Amino acid sequence: MLLLSSLFSSSSSSPHSRLLLLRLHIHLRRSISSSPPPSPSPPPLLDLPLSHPIYTIWASNTGLGKTLVSTGLAAATLLSPFPSSDSAKFIYIKPVQTGFPSDSDSAFVFRKFSQLVLRRRPSFAVSASNHVLKASASAAEAVLGFGSEGEGELRDLGAYEERRLLGEEWAAGAASELTCKTMYAWREAISPHLAVEREGGAVPDKVLLEVLGRCLRIGSEDGRGRMDVWSVVETAGGVASPGPSGTLQCDLYRVPVLVLPPVPQDPSDNLMEWFDKSQAVFSSLKEIMLSVYSERIQRFHDMPKRAGDIFWWPFTQHKLVPEETVTVIDSRCGENFSVHKVQNNDFIAQQFDACASWWTQGPDATLQIELARDVGYAAARFGHVMFPENVYEPALECAELLLEGVGKGWASRTFFSDNGSTAIEVALKMAFRKFSLDHGIILDSTDPNTIGKFIEVKVIALKGSYHGDTLGAMEAQAPSSYTGFLQQPWYTGKGLFLDPPTIFMCDGIWKLSLPEGVQSEKLKQEELTFQSRGEFFSKSRDGSSLAGSYSSFISQQLSAYSGLRGFGHIGALIIEPVVHGSGGMHMIDPLFQRVLVNECRSRKIPVIFDEVFTGFWRLGAESASELLCCQPDIACFAKLMTGGIIPLAATLATDAVFNAFAGDSKLKALLHGHSYTAHAMGCTAAVKSIKWFKDPQTNSNITSEGRLLRELWDAELVHQISSHPAVQRVVALGTLFALELQAEGSNVGYGSLYARSLLLKLREDGVYLRPLGNVIYLMCGPCTSPETCSQLLIKLYRRLEEFKPS
Amino acid sequence: MLLLSSLFSSSSSSPHSRLLLLRLHIHLRRSISSSPPPSPSPPPLLDLPLSHPIYTIWASNTGLGKTLVSTGLAAATLLSPFPSSDSAKFIYIKPVQTGFPSDSDSAFVFRKFSQLVLRRRPSFAVSASNHVLKASASAAEAVLGFGSEGEGELRDLGAYEERRLLGEEWAAGAASELTCKTMYAWREAISPHLAVEREGGAVPDKVLLEVLGRCLRIGSEDGRGRMDVWSVVETAGGVASPGPSGTLQCDLYRVPVLVLPPVPQDPSDNLMEWFDKSQAVFSSLKEIMLSVYSERIQRFHDMPKRAGDIFWWPFTQHKLVPEETVTVIDSRCGENFSVHKVQNNDFIAQQFDACASWWTQGPDATLQIELARDVGYAAARFGHVMFPENVYEPALECAELLLEGVGKGWASRTFFSDNGSTAIEVALKMAFRKFSLDHGIILDSTDPNTIGKFIEVKVIALKGSYHGDTLGAMEAQAPSSYTGFLQQPWYTGKGLFLDPPTIFMCDGIWKLSLPEGVQSEKLKQEELTFQSRGEFFSKSRDGSSLAGSYSSFISQQLSAYSGLRGFGHIGALIIEPVVHGSGGMHMIDPLFQRVLVNECRSRKIPVIFDEVFTGFWRLGAESASELLCCQPDIACFAKLMTGGIIPLAATLATDAVFNAFAGDSKLKALLHGHSYTAHAMGCTAAVKSIKWFKDPQTNSNITSEGRLLRELWDAELVHQISSHPAVQRVVALGTLFALELQAEGSNVGYGSLYARSLLLKLREDGVYLRPLGNVIYLMCGPCTSPETCSQLLIKLYRRLEEFKPS
Repeated sequence: MLLLSSLFSSSSSSPHSRLLLLRLHIHLRRSISSSPPPSPSPPPLLDLPLSHPIYTIWASNTGLGKTLVSTGLAAATLLSPFPSSDSAKFIYIKPVQTGFPSDSDSAFVFRKFSQLVLRRRPSFAVSASNHVLKASASAAEAVLGFGSEGEGELRDLGAYEERRLLGEEWAAGAASELTCKTMYAWREAISPHLAVEREGGAVPDKVLLEVLGRCLRIGSEDGRGRMDVWSVVETAGGVASPGPSGTLQCDLYRVPVLVLPPVPQDPSDNLMEWFDKSQAVFSSLKEIMLSVYSERIQRFHDMPKRAGDIFWWPFTQHKLVPEETVTVIDSRCGENFSVHKVQNNDFIAQQFDACASWWTQGPDATLQIELARDVGYAAARFGHVMFPENVYEPALECAELLLEGVGKGWASRTFFSDNGSTAIEVALKMAFRKFSLDHGIILDSTDPNTIGKFIEVKVIALKGSYHGDTLGAMEAQAPSSYTGFLQQPWYTGKGLFLDPPTIFMCDGIWKLSLPEGVQSEKLKQEELTFQSRGEFFSKSRDGSSLAGSYSSFISQQLSAYSGLRGFGHIGALIIEPVVHGSGGMHMIDPLFQRVLVNECRSRKIPVIFDEVFTGFWRLGAESASELLCCQPDIACFAKLMTGGIIPLAATLATDAVFNAFAGDSKLKALLHGHSYTAHAMGCTAAVKSIKWFKDPQTNSNITSEGRLLRELWDAELVHQISSHPAVQRVVALGTLFALELQAEGSNVGYGSLYARSLLLKLREDGVYLRPLGNVIYLMCGPCTSPETCSQLLIKLYRRLEEFKPS
Repeated sequence: MLLLSSLFSSSSSSPHSRLLLLRLHIHLRRSISSSPPPSPSPPPLLDLPLSHPIYTIWASNTGLGKTLVSTGLAAATLLSPFPSSDSAKFIYIKPVQTGFPSDSDSAFVFRKFSQLVLRRRPSFAVSASNHVLKASASAAEAVLGFGSEGEGELRDLGAYEERRLLGEEWAAGAASELTCKTMYAWREAISPHLAVEREGGAVPDKVLLEVLGRCLRIGSEDGRGRMDVWSVVETAGGVASPGPSGTLQCDLYRVPVLVLPPVPQDPSDNLMEWFDKSQAVFSSLKEIMLSVYSERIQRFHDMPKRAGDIFWWPFTQHKLVPEETVTVIDSRCGENFSVHKVQNNDFIAQQFDACASWWTQGPDATLQIELARDVGYAAARFGHVMFPENVYEPALECAELLLEGVGKGWASRTFFSDNGSTAIEVALKMAFRKFSLDHGIILDSTDPNTIGKFIEVKVIALKGSYHGDTLGAMEAQAPSSYTGFLQQPWYTGKGLFLDPPTIFMCDGIWKLSLPEGVQSEKLKQEELTFQSRGEFFSKSRDGSSLAGSYSSFISQQLSAYSGLRGFGHIGALIIEPVVHGSGGMHMIDPLFQRVLVNECRSRKIPVIFDEVFTGFWRLGAESASELLCCQPDIACFAKLMTGGIIPLAATLATDAVFNAFAGDSKLKALLHGHSYTAHAMGCTAAVKSIKWFKDPQTNSNITSEGRLLRELWDAELVHQISSHPAVQRVVALGTLFALELQAEGSNVGYGSLYARSLLLKLREDGVYLRPLGNVIYLMCGPCTSPETCSQLLIKLYRRLEEFKPS
């Protein structure tokens, strides 16, 4: 099988490309190779120029004709009877060659092409060259005839076999060029990773891709037109063949695959006749490839305008998004976007998704592929099937994993929905029913005497917390930019909203900031500042005088409220445990939240934890309730639950809550449910991700005890940033690093554009951030390495140094 | 590559099964075969006994040893030195044999097994037989030595080559048995579908599966224990090889695939040594297969209890769901569930998903596989990526298709969310903003003077309509079972709710039922009854006196409302066009809805169509607005949009609505959005499904004009059912057939269990229904054939005849 593919190519649906797209493989990499261990470091990535067509040629075996196709294409490009210009350039790159020097595909292309020139266009001005850049000691010795020092290292062969073709009638300064390059060569005719084992000369994937990137940029740097330069990369074996490091080539080069009909086998010795016969085929192949390339580039350029014309982006003032700032995302691989960029030329650049695509993301590159395979299987096996009164494997396994994991020790029921907002709405309904039962406020909806009668039930919640965008979930938040009449005419704020104490780092020290009303006169200094996170997460603070102050503060507020509105009830507590996300990445004093939970529980007010943001290792523990050292009656999960690949949410509850809905009538049941409840693909993805994140075999951030992630953010760097004059406060916990920029007036808050210039600079550094007003954050996945996190912090620090607010 | 698989097997995660599960293929069928046309009729399905282990054996080529493995397993089962009982039975089935009679795998198994008996257990009591059931004329002639009449038909060879092994020491009435069967044989040694072309003897998939089902049931009917019977089905070629009809075997038998290490090639001539050497391997293989089978059966039996213990099913009173009524769904294929059943023995039975899994479903079997491939690709390429201010192919293509399809002629913006409820919440926010702007009610949330001031804005909606389960969406419905204090303490009913006129069929006639308040004295009889749907959908009714009555009725209600509450505003109209779904499948007079839209538009009240249920051909047109002959300002879509495979919703809007959110501040933007907004997998599935449903090439229900589905429900049968005494009314439109059972008192309404006995009977008939109280409905997909729909109606009618309410 002979394959031709465009690096990072899309499956464009033009008629031309359909001809090429005879067969599309989704490579099930982990299943093809015998389960290699997950790579501990992030996969290296290639910055790819789009200034001219770049194609890769694959075959799953040797002797199938890859090199013949390369040669034919070179001839079709450079020796066409109707060249598009007189200065075309064809770059042939063989990244990895084994069996060298007796096998050398770049030498073959170079030689055969020279013969074709003499045959077809003997008077045409063409130059050609063949370079071999590096070779193993053994391969170098075979070429040079002598050995040298440094066994096991690669030899520089850069000058070897560079030649210029000078036909009789050729002019000097010939314009059209064939450039052939072999990047790495080994002597034995075996798989590259085996050759490395035997001959030495290991090449890390990262280095190989860097060198390949440099070779590809040759064509983009000499001012030729878009269609006058071609690059063809000829691989060593098929998509599932390993490169020198053992990484499969399909992973190394990240390609989808297009298939050509097989070329004739056993061509005659000098092959001239075969090339002549297939000339028309190659010309049309070339045309097809060119048009796919052109359409792709055109589409990249058109997409921002088309998007701006028809999308309605959420949370976005379209007037503030000029066409040139729209990001075209071509793909994602683990934590990174591949985005289209134009800087002199078109490029595919890599950007770390530091907003974790609204905090959903968790997969590394390996998990993403595993998830793709598993959800594909679930789709084929189940599609979606009805959930109520039914059971199927993925839903059952997912519910079990949730109850054994984030619900461990308290939850016994799993209710599925689609997103954080719906999970919260369900939680509120659950809590109010439980509260009503416990407090004897049962108004039977089937009793005509009580229809139309209402008792006011509200929540107690913290100012700055956010529980979703649906109108009901919004009622549980304090008035904010999101709740004005313009946004939500039905909002009234059905809650008692308390000002919470927050903790943040400033100048390398964790500081506690108390709200008005909390008695602080008698507090000692050590209750207000902390040297480490461990100190303020410690359960030993429960006995402190601050705990007492918190308790009186809360009691006082609850009493004042019920005094104010004698008829009202607080029917639920709802909090985001430990960190308020959308509210600006504020860390709430865990002691305060723990005291609050206890105060509510003693009043039989059901406790809801909104773990939509905090759940599944986002804050370094599987559930943030572990950090708080206390448990809810109801908790909501979404976002990271599926690894960040597909919407799914769950509301977990205790048996006591569940039993509040038992009865003889369906009308007593929880009459809430969404169409795709517990859909098989979502549950399948959740099962895979939950297991993946907590298994030290797949997630090297899991510490031996398995309860917490290791520290991802370098302490020194965090201190340094927290001491920067442009920075007001820092929060670093689990996968989250956030900072608030020093700002004043309208530069503070959600609507602020203060951070904009900083973000644009960081995007140039390959870091894709989105701000919350003047708060910016970096968010990685549970499997991201501390090294990657440090790189992000360093880039951030450098840009802070030059930050001048716009 | 040699494969062993369990028919419909799950990928159980036991350690044993992991040994087997070396490689799991997701079969990309359409990509492997060169795009065969979609099958016009529903794929035939196999009822599969689970009374004993059934495995299939595959190899992607001939000569790889399938038959050797079958023989080895037979010997391991029947000639074990430690048999589990003395009466084991091994059934070997070769459904399709070509090259017959010189090639006959069943004869090979039979012969080799006989030799092994003599060698290993010469004194053991075993009988063996080999049948060939049918053969092509040419194959039959080769066996019988003479030709016969009826060229092209299959010959019955049932009696050919039945033999009984009678070893010297064997007792009569031997207990252990080997039964070998070849179902169909052709003479030429070529692919079965080619043999059919040349020799005749076509076998439809349905017939082949029926015969196979009968063969498989042999083992379940003779009272042996679960582990004493084995069936092995040996296929013809690999998973992607065609059967006699050309259908790929993986589609025909619907199997996931487990791989065994290759068996040694070129075994010695009589193979005795090889079998002896591999005896231990086969014994352990047998053990593994047995344990996979047992675990699977055990899991089927455990699942209902485990589900009942930890799930919290939506809209379900758990107390009313005893363990034995929980349905275990093993997979779905197109419109059908495969469910586990126990009737004497364990079975996998097929049930038509007539509730369309809460109205989400659309795919036929082919589309389901296409969707699996496409979403797998999208997951691998994109996972999920950030949407706001970004663009990527699937989101762009999906938005374009929506605007060109269901939004054609009016919509210009697409806002994505996750489900119908969130799409509605977004629509309400859009409408209220537009209304406020148009009516000069702008309270600037950034202006401190207006913070905290509220103007009451409500909706106008129809009684019995339902717009989702989130608290905000629920405010847009009239008080109902869903809105009582027990369900939703925050509900107040923020709307003016009108009683709508409905249309239904009774005794074969469509009748109009008017609400109180609509002047009906002057109406002629032809305005109140209709012979056909076309009559009441006709736009010519706009000039009728009834249209005038509707208009006055609506004006009157609007005036009364604003008189009653001088301070209130009606800020949006929201309707389910044509049919109220959850409210009980009531068809609303389209004339009334059209008049209502016009009345609101003339008052500058934005119009929302809730097409969550009605969109994408559910009612026979791509959008129900086509049936209504009028267009909204905002419309909501979900459910069928992705073909029924994955949650995704969209709210479409006009440019005028979109522009109401333009401004210089982010705080004027629509501040609503969900984490997975416009997720790539959902958009990819929507793109595929939307194209699939409307393309006559893939959906044979699309009429030549392409605007409407052909009639799916047989007119005669619909009339007949509407005339049944147990039936009060019928609605049939597009993919929906609904009826309300005659009932009284507490048997009427959502909480009623009146229909229960009828539904249980229909499940026995292979039809999975869920009721809305005393309303039951059948719902198919846009591609389901009228023949299938007629079968459903016939089954329903039969069960109505014997219906006795419990």
